[in-house]
Amino acid sequence: MIPRYARPDMVAIWEPESRYGIWLEIETLAMEAMAELGTIPKSAAVEYRAKGKFDVARIDEIEREVKHDVIAFLTSVAEHVGPESRFAHQGMTSSDVLDTCLAVQLARASDLLIAGCERVMASLKKRAIEHKMTPTIGRSHGIHAEPTTFGLKLAGHYAEFARNLERLHMARFEIATCAISGAVGTFAQIDPRVEAYVAEKLGLVPEPVSTQVIPRDRHAAFFAALGVVAAGIERLATEVRHLQRTEVLEAEEFFEPGQKGSSAMPHKRNPVLTENLCGLARLVRSAVTPAMENVALWHERDISHSSVERGIGPDATIHLDFALHRVAMVIEKLVVYPENMARNLALLGGLHNSQRVMLALTQAGVSREDAYRLVQRNAMAVWQSPPPRPSTALIDRLRADPDVTAKLDPKTLEGCFDDAHHFARVDEIFARVFG
Amino acid sequence: MIPRYARPDMVAIWEPESRYGIWLEIETLAMEAMAELGTIPKSAAVEYRAKGKFDVARIDEIEREVKHDVIAFLTSVAEHVGPESRFAHQGMTSSDVLDTCLAVQLARASDLLIAGCERVMASLKKRAIEHKMTPTIGRSHGIHAEPTTFGLKLAGHYAEFARNLERLHMARFEIATCAISGAVGTFAQIDPRVEAYVAEKLGLVPEPVSTQVIPRDRHAAFFAALGVVAAGIERLATEVRHLQRTEVLEAEEFFEPGQKGSSAMPHKRNPVLTENLCGLARLVRSAVTPAMENVALWHERDISHSSVERGIGPDATIHLDFALHRVAMVIEKLVVYPENMARNLALLGGLHNSQRVMLALTQAGVSREDAYRLVQRNAMAVWQSPPPRPSTALIDRLRADPDVTAKLDPKTLEGCFDDAHHFARVDEIFARVFG
Amino acid sequence: MIPRYARPDMVAIWEPESRYGIWLEIETLAMEAMAELGTIPKSAAVEYRAKGKFDVARIDEIEREVKHDVIAFLTSVAEHVGPESRFAHQGMTSSDVLDTCLAVQLARASDLLIAGCERVMASLKKRAIEHKMTPTIGRSHGIHAEPTTFGLKLAGHYAEFARNLERLHMARFEIATCAISGAVGTFAQIDPRVEAYVAEKLGLVPEPVSTQVIPRDRHAAFFAALGVVAAGIERLATEVRHLQRTEVLEAEEFFEPGQKGSSAMPHKRNPVLTENLCGLARLVRSAVTPAMENVALWHERDISHSSVERGIGPDATIHLDFALHRVAMVIEKLVVYPENMARNLALLGGLHNSQRVMLALTQAGVSREDAYRLVQRNAMAVWQSPPPRPSTALIDRLRADPDVTAKLDPKTLEGCFDDAHHFARVDEIFARVFG
Amino acid sequence: MIPRYARPDMVAIWEPESRYGIWLEIETLAMEAMAELGTIPKSAAVEYRAKGKFDVARIDEIEREVKHDVIAFLTSVAEHVGPESRFAHQGMTSSDVLDTCLAVQLARASDLLIAGCERVMASLKKRAIEHKMTPTIGRSHGIHAEPTTFGLKLAGHYAEFARNLERLHMARFEIATCAISGAVGTFAQIDPRVEAYVAEKLGLVPEPVSTQVIPRDRHAAFFAALGVVAAGIERLATEVRHLQRTEVLEAEEFFEPGQKGSSAMPHKRNPVLTENLCGLARLVRSAVTPAMENVALWHERDISHSSVERGIGPDATIHLDFALHRVAMVIEKLVVYPENMARNLALLGGLHNSQRVMLALTQAGVSREDAYRLVQRNAMAVWQSPPPRPSTALIDRLRADPDVTAKLDPKTLEGCFDDAHHFARVDEIFARVFG
Repeated sequence: MIPRYARPDMVAIWEPESRYGIWLEIETLAMEAMAELGTIPKSAAVEYRAKGKFDVARIDEIEREVKHDVIAFLTSVAEHVGPESRFAHQGMTSSDVLDTCLAVQLARASDLLIAGCERVMASLKKRAIEHKMTPTIGRSHGIHAEPTTFGLKLAGHYAEFARNLERLHMARFEIATCAISGAVGTFAQIDPRVEAYVAEKLGLVPEPVSTQVIPRDRHAAFFAALGVVAAGIERLATEVRHLQRTEVLEAEEFFEPGQKGSSAMPHKRNPVLTENLCGLARLVRSAVTPAMENVALWHERDISHSSVERGIGPDATIHLDFALHRVAMVIEKLVVYPENMARNLALLGGLHNSQRVMLALTQAGVSREDAYRLVQRNAMAVWQSPPPRPSTALIDRLRADPDVTAKLDPKTLEGCFDDAHHFARVDEIFARVFG
Repeated sequence: MIPRYARPDMVAIWEPESRYGIWLEIETLAMEAMAELGTIPKSAAVEYRAKGKFDVARIDEIEREVKHDVIAFLTSVAEHVGPESRFAHQGMTSSDVLDTCLAVQLARASDLLIAGCERVMASLKKRAIEHKMTPTIGRSHGIHAEPTTFGLKLAGHYAEFARNLERLHMARFEIATCAISGAVGTFAQIDPRVEAYVAEKLGLVPEPVSTQVIPRDRHAAFFAALGVVAAGIERLATEVRHLQRTEVLEAEEFFEPGQKGSSAMPHKRNPVLTENLCGLARLVRSAVTPAMENVALWHERDISHSSVERGIGPDATIHLDFALHRVAMVIEKLVVYPENMARNLALLGGLHNSQRVMLALTQAGVSREDAYRLVQRNAMAVWQSPPPRPSTALIDRLRADPDVTAKLDPKTLEGCFDDAHHFARVDEIFARVFG
Repeated sequence: MIPRYARPDMVAIWEPESRYGIWLEIETLAMEAMAELGTIPKSAAVEYRAKGKFDVARIDEIEREVKHDVIAFLTSVAEHVGPESRFAHQGMTSSDVLDTCLAVQLARASDLLIAGCERVMASLKKRAIEHKMTPTIGRSHGIHAEPTTFGLKLAGHYAEFARNLERLHMARFEIATCAISGAVGTFAQIDPRVEAYVAEKLGLVPEPVSTQVIPRDRHAAFFAALGVVAAGIERLATEVRHLQRTEVLEAEEFFEPGQKGSSAMPHKRNPVLTENLCGLARLVRSAVTPAMENVALWHERDISHSSVERGIGPDATIHLDFALHRVAMVIEKLVVYPENMARNLALLGGLHNSQRVMLALTQAGVSREDAYRLVQRNAMAVWQSPPPRPSTALIDRLRADPDVTAKLDPKTLEGCFDDAHHFARVDEIFARVFG
Repeated sequence: MIPRYARPDMVAIWEPESRYGIWLEIETLAMEAMAELGTIPKSAAVEYRAKGKFDVARIDEIEREVKHDVIAFLTSVAEHVGPESRFAHQGMTSSDVLDTCLAVQLARASDLLIAGCERVMASLKKRAIEHKMTPTIGRSHGIHAEPTTFGLKLAGHYAEFARNLERLHMARFEIATCAISGAVGTFAQIDPRVEAYVAEKLGLVPEPVSTQVIPRDRHAAFFAALGVVAAGIERLATEVRHLQRTEVLEAEEFFEPGQKGSSAMPHKRNPVLTENLCGLARLVRSAVTPAMENVALWHERDISHSSVERGIGPDATIHLDFALHRVAMVIEKLVVYPENMARNLALLGGLHNSQRVMLALTQAGVSREDAYRLVQRNAMAVWQSPPPRPSTALIDRLRADPDVTAKLDPKTLEGCFDDAHHFARVDEIFARVFG
């Protein structure tokens, strides 16, 4: 975990105190359930709830001897609770505590990620509506294609994050299960009602069949979902980086007063936040492969997944959480330059209406292939003329091409160059996206 | 795509004929919708439906000149249809055809994968019920832990594949969208009702906002789901490989008459099918990272995703489909050796009941730490004695340990060694899994 | 393997005929060595060399029964050779044949990749020298930084491919080993001199200690090297894509006569080759993870690596080979626009010399922090002025800033805006790169 | 970075104090070189060396304002040095400091990894020699194949780590370069002799052509090498895990006095160290993909690589370093059970000599196919007989098979069952591996 890419709320979930706190709650809830069932004395559960405490340094000390973290934890709590602590953890195994705790942590992490995703969506929606009708050139392959609006660009990203929100809800659903099933998961020494009780109190559902551990396909699916969200952040960040390029400069990350862009070059204003987001996306995605490699544990369980999860559990959730808030902030504060968009839109002298002309020609009886060639030869001439090109460069050429004018009257041709028709469906698309 | 790991049904989806067939259907449906809307003459749509044909070799030939597959396809069809073909593809762009076609192919592929997953589930359920009460040792860390049943092992895998089935349904849902939205997705030259019509006819839903392409987060999520399924196959295959190990031999892949295990060693019977499945799982998972790298296309689209999808589209679906049927077949025909399970279960002289004794001691007032030490010192002595160990090795030692007998009367001690209690909850777990 | 991204030379290496041909050569060479050592009759070796033949269809047929490819192959050859064939494969195991064959195939593939890499280097060197002194703006973060030359850009890529060439040589070295060591690699039934003989004849070196298989860390290192090369292709391809962007247009992929850029928009000329290369890079890199997962085979060997290698062996080498030649062709034919480079260079009104001014101020006694602020405030004013900006925009402002003129006399200031100094070291850097 | 999988020496390399210390050394060395060249006053260099200091908290504070770490650092140092500090960083850019610092850190990290690898090799060599002639069954596919020795197993791993050592040396070579080339790498404001001086003092070589940054293919190759080493650790760890399985128990991780294997089951002794190593291997390998994604920076540089490297730089080196020492310790202390190896070797009643018999039959004139079938039918009968099988099970059956005895006289047959021949080449292989 890289501290500079971390928000305190998410970091807190992964701190030792949080983890041991959840362990203690699991053990205590399990005792309460067992006491209710008569398996252990009620006094033991009451005592554990009342006196149960742990000491992180003491746990570390004990673990150095016994080489087992849960035993170290139980011993530390026992030192506070006294003899009644022998009724703790009855019929349970470490994985019951560890895996259920991980489920609680990942569920809490999911809640933060969901909130982060909703912030991204809110920022995109606000700016999309603001720029719903701001014309800008659409680009395929980095090359001017046809006009679109800046709001429509953002609406596309909004729709992606709406899908990501669903994926995060699904991811939370995947991992929010509880297993208190004892050694190799047979409930041989523990009543399934204990599991049901603990699950309910923790907001989880019982794992239908655990094999001492909660199966790791759940976690693989969880981290895969995070990887997809990270990829969506990369797509949005890449868009901003492109728009901020010197030659394009249609939008720009907010540059704070006092900020310096380069130690060497005082003129620089770089899209460092979005570049950073691209890097963070790579980091978050790097959790996906090891999470999938974790699935095939041996027989009822091995512990190879554990070190992986100690890494990717905090890292992927903390960095994705940070990235979501960073990307939201970038969008909220994004400086948009409609005048530059307009200037760029005019750059190719009307080439962006080439399709319109071709379609008009086919409607006028020209075959698709001939229409294509007719328009292409005029378009390429404009393409190869040096900038600045007059905004009428293409129509001027077409007007001078007898093969074109033989088929299209002046008014029809002019109609092909009315940009308004490119924006005619924006309302309809917005309705599809934002309802 | 590796032919030996391919089933004809899935291969067929990805053949050029299938792809061009879907393209033709999309173009024809779009024309029918346009004709209905009055954008093009009805006769053109009728003509295209009637005469529309393509020729793979001819398409290849044209593509070599124009360097564009969809244009080559349209030209080939136009050669069959004649002049009316100029009304085809009006206001559409190649991606409308390509991406909608890919959606159809992936949806069909999903249907086969879902069927394959259901076959795996059926095989697991059948064998799980057959061996519901077949005792076997549960192993954590590859070390004997406590008894379970072979049916319970399989039930765990069944539950994982039931989750995988849901994931495949979700994956299908993710990619089953249609985009007929024209250049940069603005519907500038095409009515959204065309998209709605084509979508409905093809069993897809319209993509709310496309940017000429269907956004690639959908495909990333799709291939990630396939990766999780592949990991589940690896887990099950790894279990079989472990069970077939010479020293374990609790189950074995079916060995066909005439089969040879080794070119050098005539005695060999190797778990080659499940080893192969582990490799196939790695192959399928290898699609996940490039699919995620495909998400961040530039602006409204670039075509970098295309070559990736030409690879992973067929490869991941074909190999996963093959793997699902192979693993189902392995389970269906798996040779199970209950007698070997029983022999292995007895191997450690009753150590698998160590927890029972420890819990009985704590119930009798011994602290958890002391109980652990008392049992551990006897258990380690048994552990270190050379096999074959009598099945009463641990209880014999405990009976001779005065610290133990001071706390546990003979009957209580004996009760700890009744294996039946390990299986007491199997019915309940089966009910949770199979309903 | 995707046929459209494949060159015949590399494809030939992986065809069944090639593979079986190598198998036959290995078996024959081994027999000749054994005959020489007196282990088998000389006549048997002579016979095998003379009559040894195989039939792909027949091998397939036999394999369907025995489920073992090498046994099927040996049986097919035996049908041509007759009784003497019983002396073939003596003391050998299938892996001796398979792994040594794979080494031969990967070594041949390496030779082609090395040739491809050399072609890329040649293309880069030629164009680098051609444009050694063509000024262009250097960009960090996509933002104009300071001038460089187009030749220097290409020299950087050349140096990377020179490193890639070394990596390919190392990769070849890694995998060019031969194992003829029999079951579990003990040479129990075969003389190590047979291995030495076969290795020498095939241009390989003996694997010091094989465990029936050649250890897979070699192959992991091999595919990792290919992944690094692919990433280098992606970097170069990304540069071209950026340069071809409409607003930049400093270079462009060659657009062939007759080529069509878009089915919808006749004006389009898209960098589709380099976009395609980015996708191919992702595909090649996707081989790295499964190759690393292949290393940890169980005990002396399992066969899980095999299906992976049947995929990534041909796929990664074929697609990388294709990509190397495609990127070389792109560079060879790249259309470069020095006039556009000049125009872009002037876009920011001289901001690219901001560092020069800052350094001059520090040399004149101003603290770094103050110098930075002085320049930054003038630079930001230029930055925010609308284009087109006069090429003297920054110097004009500085000349009007009394805090600047108090420290810098007019001549010193003017000297800061002489672009020539940016190119003063180009010769020296070229000498470092090209020798 | 996960603290429990970290050794202090490696952690120290990555601490802020180390990083800033290297930055200060780079800036100071550069000033000394510039002073020598007369670019800046000698007094400035002397002053910087004498008074140059930094304050981590102060740097953090400044960075919060300027959003730029190197500027924050320079400002903090300037506060200690005074006005002469304006001569620092002249003509340099942040990347000169950052990338050269990273090279120093990765080179130091490499030195520790190399030492760790050498420790693994030493441990393997010692135990290999100790068990050079300890017979054990070789296993292919987890199934008994033919005998080998435990020393030979370890020799194979030794040879792999010897290759890994070479790879680590190569990896160090890849990244040990220095760039002090200024904005976009043109040396426009800095003399290349400064770079040469700094490089030499830091034990690096100058980067032939940098583009402000050191090209990231170097780092991709570095992390790929670490991934291959990690995979080798996984292979060795997997071997130990297999050997410790209850049914096999041929070797065992050292179990420390006081250690507890399970919170629930006092009898457990689990291979947790090697399972943990498998997880760590996955973690280290997860750095490879993002490192490769880092290569394709935009134009002369973007900063997307930075966040990735802040993660994988420390994480991959720290965890691999820890893993190397952990695996070395496991091997050093590994408890080996030759008697269990002997027992397992006898498990299949002599089947491991099946190849010997087959070869003897072919030598006696039987075709390979018939010999295979003759042996296979007897071997399968032994295979299917329940254990314990007499060690003469196979030879007894062969002696009773008239088709066999017709071809092989009793003495020849008996010779096939002399295990000594399996070990005849061990000396020779050891000489190949250990020299």
